[in-house]
Amino acid sequence: MVTAPLGTDGYVVAVDVGGTSLKGARTATGGEVLETVEVPTGRGADAVDQVLSLCRSLAGPRTVAVGLAVPGLVDSDRGVVRYAANLGWRDLPLRDLVADELGLPVTVEQDVRAAGRAEAALDRDGAGGSLLLVVLGTGVGATVVFDGLPVVGDTSTAGEFGHVVTRPGGLACTCGQRGCLEAYASAASIARRYHAAGGDRSATAAEIATSVDPLALQVWQEAADALGLALAGATVLLDPAAIVLAGGLSRAGSRLVDPVHRSLQQQLAWRDAPPVRLSRLGSRAGQAGAALVAWEAAAALGTGRPAGRTPAPRLRR
Amino acid sequence: MVTAPLGTDGYVVAVDVGGTSLKGARTATGGEVLETVEVPTGRGADAVDQVLSLCRSLAGPRTVAVGLAVPGLVDSDRGVVRYAANLGWRDLPLRDLVADELGLPVTVEQDVRAAGRAEAALDRDGAGGSLLLVVLGTGVGATVVFDGLPVVGDTSTAGEFGHVVTRPGGLACTCGQRGCLEAYASAASIARRYHAAGGDRSATAAEIATSVDPLALQVWQEAADALGLALAGATVLLDPAAIVLAGGLSRAGSRLVDPVHRSLQQQLAWRDAPPVRLSRLGSRAGQAGAALVAWEAAAALGTGRPAGRTPAPRLRR
Ligand SMILES: [Zn+2]
Ligand SMILES: [Zn+2]
Repeated sequence: MVTAPLGTDGYVVAVDVGGTSLKGARTATGGEVLETVEVPTGRGADAVDQVLSLCRSLAGPRTVAVGLAVPGLVDSDRGVVRYAANLGWRDLPLRDLVADELGLPVTVEQDVRAAGRAEAALDRDGAGGSLLLVVLGTGVGATVVFDGLPVVGDTSTAGEFGHVVTRPGGLACTCGQRGCLEAYASAASIARRYHAAGGDRSATAAEIATSVDPLALQVWQEAADALGLALAGATVLLDPAAIVLAGGLSRAGSRLVDPVHRSLQQQLAWRDAPPVRLSRLGSRAGQAGAALVAWEAAAALGTGRPAGRTPAPRLRR
Repeated sequence: MVTAPLGTDGYVVAVDVGGTSLKGARTATGGEVLETVEVPTGRGADAVDQVLSLCRSLAGPRTVAVGLAVPGLVDSDRGVVRYAANLGWRDLPLRDLVADELGLPVTVEQDVRAAGRAEAALDRDGAGGSLLLVVLGTGVGATVVFDGLPVVGDTSTAGEFGHVVTRPGGLACTCGQRGCLEAYASAASIARRYHAAGGDRSATAAEIATSVDPLALQVWQEAADALGLALAGATVLLDPAAIVLAGGLSRAGSRLVDPVHRSLQQQLAWRDAPPVRLSRLGSRAGQAGAALVAWEAAAALGTGRPAGRTPAPRLRR
């Protein structure tokens, strides 16, 4: 369970703003989810109205803060969504919009970073709150978390792990490069490659993961190998305590973790691979991270218990 | 100039324990180097005795702490040099040895991380104390610095950037892998590849860097391309504010920086490359970093001015 800092009282509202659905929750200090609401996501201004109305419906007199997890390019310091293709948002001052509407402190965090914070918070005893989270979905994203804090980067674009080149001169990627990890290891690429090679055209990545068709095995193994190479590069540079796999492909469970770990170890001749495991929070990670940043915002403002009992918030990088 | 935290008075002793020479200095609060001593490095127990005697000779009544920068695998938390091949040290409790001898707080930091700290401290206004430092010498090492603190990693092996695979199936590396960055872009590899291809067998990497021989240009360009690819991977994941090049090869100046930046940009189709620049401290970076960690140790112990005027130290990850 992802818990709030001790000494903060009340509730927070946490919303995971996904491209498919908005998942809202009201969460207590101990991390207990008291109420949840899920609605299909609209586009553009409609989606903004949905976020506002979801926050209003979940907030009550004891709500101390709001946390929002949003996909895309997010400037958390200013609370601005710089670009979210699936939502049709560009340079949207989401923090101020919600804060003005609700009169509460609001924190906006990118969804992958929010998920990484939540996984690291769960894991603080094990990996010391440091890990590399990789989200394998339609695309491939990641976040590097140190001591519970995600690396945001100088231009807020850290974690674009899908565009690490794993096969120089390889398959074309949507980003304009060739050989990107995402061209081999995203759900979309796995399905596309399997179909193009003559596989059953109705098969999804999830089905390819569990198929015994030699073609499916090959496409899946190539995805694991590309991921293993990219993870080897990250391991060599950062020596993470754990590598955590999330996103739709992670539903393949050990069919994903085992070949990825094996491939990572094969591509690290001189050291042991770090542990590779599945996300513990799964599809709830974004929302749990949104709750976490809301609690931090509440603690920072001294909401709730007297200041002496409110721990200093972990400041963002 | 790398300065001490405000409010700490006195001097620190800083020693950069290199494989070739020990560079010791006595440094004041403002970062001024008051005295330096350099001696050729012995091996094993001799090198330990040299460190102790250098520290004794530089310390005085107003010395508040000692900082040591050491190559190899360094556990800074415990002050233990786990392995330093060039010095013949293994599992050496260097911090306690020096602390017992001098009766002062001692901090031991790995030399690349020490250099990264010092570069970041100089740069705090520009890149916010966050950067990727790459040391191109006989081997290739690196450190990732966030907010002035280097990433140490779960097993203290972060920064082994020389063993990022840039050419899958490529040249054999000493680590047992194929295609490592170090097999293309270290000074030793550049010279070896040039000689093996029929180039002048007396030419050093520095000479190859400035040669107009087409073979030299090709070997140098291949080094820059391997480095550009490895840096592109790190940029995509971490979005660093700056990439800083150090070590012997950095003496090539713009002959190194320009092709590396160009290659990095060519391998990042979808975003601008971060700035690439030379180390500002050059061969003094390790010693400056040793002074910095010494000042931090002094501040942490409340040495010097009254506690209220001593800033909280930056804690290690
Ligand atoms: Zn790409
Ligand atoms: Zn290697």
